[in-house]
Amino acid sequence: MSTKSLDLVNIPKQPIRVFVPATVANVACGYDVLGFAVEGPGDEVTVKAISRQDLIIKKIEGDRGKLPLDPRQNTITVPVFKYLEKLQCKSGFEFELIKNIPFSGGMGSSSASSVAGVYAVNELLGRPLNIPDLLPFAMEGEQIACGSAHADNVAPALLGGFVVVRSYSPLDIVKINVPDHLYCVIVHPDILISTADSRKVLPKKIHLKDAVRQWGNVAGLITGLMKGDLDLIARSLEDHLIEPVRSAFIPGYTDVKKSALKAGALGCNISGSGPSVFALTSSKKIAEKTALEMQAAFGRVGVENQAYISQINKKGPKIIV
Amino acid sequence: MSTKSLDLVNIPKQPIRVFVPATVANVACGYDVLGFAVEGPGDEVTVKAISRQDLIIKKIEGDRGKLPLDPRQNTITVPVFKYLEKLQCKSGFEFELIKNIPFSGGMGSSSASSVAGVYAVNELLGRPLNIPDLLPFAMEGEQIACGSAHADNVAPALLGGFVVVRSYSPLDIVKINVPDHLYCVIVHPDILISTADSRKVLPKKIHLKDAVRQWGNVAGLITGLMKGDLDLIARSLEDHLIEPVRSAFIPGYTDVKKSALKAGALGCNISGSGPSVFALTSSKKIAEKTALEMQAAFGRVGVENQAYISQINKKGPKIIV
Repeated sequence: MSTKSLDLVNIPKQPIRVFVPATVANVACGYDVLGFAVEGPGDEVTVKAISRQDLIIKKIEGDRGKLPLDPRQNTITVPVFKYLEKLQCKSGFEFELIKNIPFSGGMGSSSASSVAGVYAVNELLGRPLNIPDLLPFAMEGEQIACGSAHADNVAPALLGGFVVVRSYSPLDIVKINVPDHLYCVIVHPDILISTADSRKVLPKKIHLKDAVRQWGNVAGLITGLMKGDLDLIARSLEDHLIEPVRSAFIPGYTDVKKSALKAGALGCNISGSGPSVFALTSSKKIAEKTALEMQAAFGRVGVENQAYISQINKKGPKIIV
Repeated sequence: MSTKSLDLVNIPKQPIRVFVPATVANVACGYDVLGFAVEGPGDEVTVKAISRQDLIIKKIEGDRGKLPLDPRQNTITVPVFKYLEKLQCKSGFEFELIKNIPFSGGMGSSSASSVAGVYAVNELLGRPLNIPDLLPFAMEGEQIACGSAHADNVAPALLGGFVVVRSYSPLDIVKINVPDHLYCVIVHPDILISTADSRKVLPKKIHLKDAVRQWGNVAGLITGLMKGDLDLIARSLEDHLIEPVRSAFIPGYTDVKKSALKAGALGCNISGSGPSVFALTSSKKIAEKTALEMQAAFGRVGVENQAYISQINKKGPKIIV
């Protein structure tokens, strides 16, 4: 067949199945520059090579029909188009996606999909690019989904661990070590906020003195994480700029946060652009108590919700069987 | 004598002589929250107990007559008044100060004096307060000198090393480790800028996107220092907010910075509120070359200057004999 690419000769016929984790961006003080991955939930994508030069989204589960099947519009395939173009690769692929990460929840749902496709195809092709080099492609998916190519979800989804986006131009991502016994609770309330909308409410300008407080906390948080100083982590998990504006969109937020701190969490804040709320804790036991208390607080204002507990995911995506 | 305090019974009659180092505040991206101490230059203060409840400044050398001898107006004694009041101590002391740190140079001159008096008196009294607990008193001196009680010079002058001011209210200071082989060059041009004046030119409000760039660099710098990642330190030594405004007060600044980077410095920026310019380097040899090139650049615009080279001072003040 004239449309069949030579590349295909070496691509395994077996499909590959990949898990990509949810992520918490901003992390209180680090708006647009800090993020980390969790062990679960995560999106699952199955990719197999097809015999013509095309990308096909065969099926998406778990999105309640909200995601487009058009590969030029979907976050999973847009990065793959760019990736194949860059590699001058004429292969074609078919994708099946299971979305386990709540949609528009502030848990990096679109980022996980943006990473999943390009990560899986790169693995299927025998890893022609190193993992960190996939980041610019994954960010193209984020651009489609959110209207802005921020990296604070995409980078930890792809690389795992706790990451700093030092710079967007040029893109400069740094991974930092975190204490092993750190746990994360994410509680997702069943309400909808779009990332694009929740970015609109942010002030374009801020007071220099408020910015100073914020970068003091960023410096404190990084130091605390790298030293394993839990008290310092707790003191630094503050946000004087974004939380006051965005928390207004989350029913019961003040009570949810108070409940988390009372249960012993080191800190509690909005996950990404919300409406999910995350807490960091120093043990699994405290994480379990924190999750219960946060869920109860959402319950008190009649908001259905789901809680997820996990350690920081240090590895990022993984191939599953 | 009725005015003689009982406290005096236990105070050594011998004077104590203390060295307090110069400091570099802001450190490019960390306006008002980052600072570090150098090995030299430093101010020297000699303190001895006197037999009446009073503070006397007997002599100041090296200030060209610019500092007030009135103890209620001088940065060296104002913190001591507050300290003695807090301790309900009725002792009296006499001070002699040798100023080796250029005055209003952006090298923490006033902070060194603010620290020197209270540190020396606390040592003479047998250290009734721990060193970090002297910080609020020293900040009172900074308030007198600069019109604002910022801590990014005072804290490293008192504690040594590289410090983060995580928060001003409550005051929360964190020391971080830095690579052993890091060197600092400070070049002080013989021009005068007052800290109060150079604070006035700063914008009250800044763009959120500029703040994001700044806290990305803060996170990068802290990570780089703690990991000993010199490339990351170099990439993070950026300031998009303060440097563009303040550098206009420093003749030849652009050329000085370019010369430092060309000589191999990791980064170069304004020290504190200027006019001194600092550079960080990865070795003594590069520091020496950097200093020469920076001095030559100031020379090209006809500005007299002095250069200082040292490692990061990890210990802060010290008693000298």
